This record gives sequence, C-alpha cells and structure tokens, in this order.
Amino acid sequence: MESPMHPTIAAFEAAAQTGDEAALAPLLSPVVQFLPPTYWARWQGPEAVAAVLGHVGQVFTDFRYRRVMGHGPDWALEFQCKVGDLDAVGVDLITLDADGLIAQLEVVMRPLKTVAALREAMNARVATDPRFLKLRDALTDG
Amino acid sequence: MESPMHPTIAAFEAAAQTGDEAALAPLLSPVVQFLPPTYWARWQGPEAVAAVLGHVGQVFTDFRYRRVMGHGPDWALEFQCKVGDLDAVGVDLITLDADGLIAQLEVVMRPLKTVAALREAMNARVATDPRFLKLRDALTDG
Repeated sequence: MESPMHPTIAAFEAAAQTGDEAALAPLLSPVVQFLPPTYWARWQGPEAVAAVLGHVGQVFTDFRYRRVMGHGPDWALEFQCKVGDLDAVGVDLITLDADGLIAQLEVVMRPLKTVAALREAMNARVATDPRFLKLRDALTDG
Repeated sequence: MESPMHPTIAAFEAAAQTGDEAALAPLLSPVVQFLPPTYWARWQGPEAVAAVLGHVGQVFTDFRYRRVMGHGPDWALEFQCKVGDLDAVGVDLITLDADGLIAQLEVVMRPLKTVAALREAMNARVATDPRFLKLRDALTDG
C-alpha cells in the first residue's frame, strides 16, 4: 500500500531541488548528519549541512526527483540530474527523528565519473566559501 | 503504512547477498536491464545480468541489507558492504514488471573511492570470464 508522503519529505523535495538553504535549515534536526556521495565522511549540524546542500543545489542542473519510496521515519528519494554535461542518478536516503525532522541524510549516486566531477566542483566551492573556515570542525570521519 | 515485502524482492535479497546466479536468473524479466554504479551504461538480458551480479556478489564482502522501502513495482533496498578494506553504502533501485519479475535494477553507491575499487575489481573479473566474450553485445550505452 502506498504511504502518503511525510510533510518534511515534501518540503525537503521542494527545497533541495534549488538548494534553498533558508528553506532547508528548519527541516534539519539540531544533530543532523549528512553523508555525501563523494567521501566516507559526515557533516554534522544544521548550519554546515544546509550550507553544503546549498552548494550541491547549485552544482546539480536539470535536477528532477523521480520515485519516492518509504514510510514513517524511512525514506528513499530517487533523483536524476547533471553535473556539467555528465548524467547522474542518485538516492537521498533519509531518516526522520521523532519530531519529524531530518536526523540523517545519506546520498548515493551513479556513475563514478559524474561523482568525480561533483567532488571537484564541491571542493572548489567549499574552498572559496568563507563560512567553511569555521565549519571545518563539522566534518568528521566515517 | 508499511508494505509487505514483495516475494521477488525477498528472493532477490537472499540471492544477491551471495551472488547466487542460479537463484537470481529466474527473478529477472527476459528484457531486464541492469544499470551499474560504475559506468553510464546498461547490461541487457537475464544471462548477462545474472553473470554480472554473480561477480558483484563475489567482490562485495561483509554484505548486509539494511532498510527496504517501496511498494507495488517500486523498491529501494539499502545495503552496506566492503570492497577490499573500503566501506560502501548503496541502494538497489528495482522496478518490477506486471508478472512480478525484475525489469530494471539500477545501483547507486557511495563513496567515490570504493566505487573506483569496485570498477577495477569488476574489470579484472569480466576480462577473465570467457562468457563475457559473447556477452559483450549485452552492454549498451546510456
């Protein structure tokens, strides 16, 4: 049986497509963790995660969500996009907390070549965003 | 509301964990397409797809399915595994046909480094599996 989409998931879909940091931040738990497709590491806290997702929303073009699967706290949002002229498909794996806020967002993608281009584009953006000088502590291993 | 797991999905989970080609093949549509995490390309047909998944099942170690999300024809199976000593997380994006067979399997993963190791391991295996001399036509672009 199809589950109705959780309101946080609906709001996340709308905000993530455009990298709207101001709309994303209130959907995130105070202890949110973001696990990116590029590295085996995690960003912690709503300020860092909203800032990273804001950059991702600028790097991805022709972004479109496809299927949304899940129920309760567990959701998988399938998307397609481009990075430069390279195609990509991915999934936002989301875990909601008891308050309906996003406690964890883990992003998996294909293919390898596009994720390599994403890493290059994100490194360039984070290196030139002065906010990340103080957000460096929000990135941890594993 | 949580959906009961489709019997094809339950059987796929059991067979994929060990790369059991004989158990995988009958779950696949005659026109199945497999879209791997490594390349922007697709394998077509049950013979090729079961053979590729058999190799993947050997390359992945410490493999474990985590959450299963979906209903009807649309499923997302979250997994974790290792490739050599590198960690990975991924999702099997599955579309079932009207007969309940797997029509499409698209695999997305993180992080980049592990997918690069997977590509290297798969290239070595496919190059030394004589079946792939005749299965080359089953790999198409896009």
